[in-house]
Amino acid sequence: MKIITEKKEMQQMAKQLQSKGKTIGFVPTMGYLHEGHLTLVRKAKKENDIVVMSIFVNPLQFGPDEDYEAYPRDQKRDERLAETTGVDLLFIPNVSDMYDAELSTKMSVVKRNHALCGNDRPGHFDGVVTVLAKLFHIVMPDKAYFGLKDAQQFAVVAGMVADYDFPVQLIPVETVRDANGLAVSSRNVYLSAREKEQAPCIYKSLLLAKHKIEQGATDVEEIKSAVIDFLKSRTDALIDYVDILSYPELQPLEQIHGRIIIAIAVKFSKARLIDNIIFDVS
Amino acid sequence: MKIITEKKEMQQMAKQLQSKGKTIGFVPTMGYLHEGHLTLVRKAKKENDIVVMSIFVNPLQFGPDEDYEAYPRDQKRDERLAETTGVDLLFIPNVSDMYDAELSTKMSVVKRNHALCGNDRPGHFDGVVTVLAKLFHIVMPDKAYFGLKDAQQFAVVAGMVADYDFPVQLIPVETVRDANGLAVSSRNVYLSAREKEQAPCIYKSLLLAKHKIEQGATDVEEIKSAVIDFLKSRTDALIDYVDILSYPELQPLEQIHGRIIIAIAVKFSKARLIDNIIFDVS
Repeated sequence: MKIITEKKEMQQMAKQLQSKGKTIGFVPTMGYLHEGHLTLVRKAKKENDIVVMSIFVNPLQFGPDEDYEAYPRDQKRDERLAETTGVDLLFIPNVSDMYDAELSTKMSVVKRNHALCGNDRPGHFDGVVTVLAKLFHIVMPDKAYFGLKDAQQFAVVAGMVADYDFPVQLIPVETVRDANGLAVSSRNVYLSAREKEQAPCIYKSLLLAKHKIEQGATDVEEIKSAVIDFLKSRTDALIDYVDILSYPELQPLEQIHGRIIIAIAVKFSKARLIDNIIFDVS
Repeated sequence: MKIITEKKEMQQMAKQLQSKGKTIGFVPTMGYLHEGHLTLVRKAKKENDIVVMSIFVNPLQFGPDEDYEAYPRDQKRDERLAETTGVDLLFIPNVSDMYDAELSTKMSVVKRNHALCGNDRPGHFDGVVTVLAKLFHIVMPDKAYFGLKDAQQFAVVAGMVADYDFPVQLIPVETVRDANGLAVSSRNVYLSAREKEQAPCIYKSLLLAKHKIEQGATDVEEIKSAVIDFLKSRTDALIDYVDILSYPELQPLEQIHGRIIIAIAVKFSKARLIDNIIFDVS
């Protein structure tokens, strides 16, 4: 595995690989790798000649009161895991190289962002599309892999890719879960022992809602209330939101029909966790 | 020469060429080709394996009161000229293919646009960067060629390419002029016989200003006044602006030093013409 820290070098390498007819699979991450990331790598490995992973904690997508500084980092461990899992090129740029001048053209997300995490995190998705536009140009992937735990992020990025005809195919990958159902996340390390026991209830509450819908429930507010009650009675977490929307448009539902997402964000003492399920209702 | 009208086909073709190690030179145009465009093609021809030209009158960069509908078009003539000059692939998409859905992410220019044409044409450069971001992804060029008659456009596009690390090298090409000094432009066809005689004064006035600076003139306002007087006394045109700024930042000058642009926009009865010269002052 080769480690690259300069964007110019990464881009030259990507150009060279492309001109030799090699396909590039890309796994963008913020590091502190877990089984979710490694699942993306394994899939990328199967479908491409070369797998590039980036590790970059992107300051632009953190709000002033968010955990940019505190975001967990462990580069040595990440390098080991990336190499073991089969990453060919590990791109770890620093902030001053990625943002080497004040932007003269801004990207702003205007659809799919006024919902879920977009409501609580103004500017978050602008930061996400900005760094991904850059990374897509630097890494020049044929395919890029994203976990569906960040389902809104996937919807927003898919919007940008379609808008600007990026020559990359986005591959959504199912959320990886612990045996107890908890979605794996870099932020899970911040859960207390007690919270760790409670956190699997998030996924349980999603399954509860899905079950209700499959049993014929049609009232969105009623289903949301049931989820909220379930979470309140079984966890100490504060509930940021529970919502049921169309996917990927993230619009409120007149009726529960078509592809939908049930999404949750909760705050434990030191970690904000999100989870969701996406399924088709006929 | 192959003509391509679908963006998906163009992108597939570009991917294929790249994977075979072919370099792509790109000349984006709005058609109604003239010697300026053909000069770009000839240069691209020398420096790349394959030359792609696009012809697309981009509605997004025209204001509601501007000449989108009236912009001159002659596709058959363009095809002939492109082929004769050595274009390999001519990409002529239609508007509904290029903008097949409402944008979910907007690009807005925030630097280098509050000057010159940017003042009179709100949103113009947002439309320019939007279409070029798309075209760069569809055509996937190694090099893209732009005439310096649109010097502000070049500065803005160079800003976007640097901001988002587009894997393309921008090549600025000197303005092509008629023997009398008039910068060639698709809009020159709208000049009356009398205006055609007057229009070369635009370039003469630029040379006058340059001469003054080379002779030691240092007062920007004085030099601008001299240019305005010269134009008023020799043409019927209305003067939109005459300005002297740093290039490519397009900032007002404290002193005339470094790389500068002298730029002019005037309105004749049926055509708004622009011209400029860029040079270094030591």
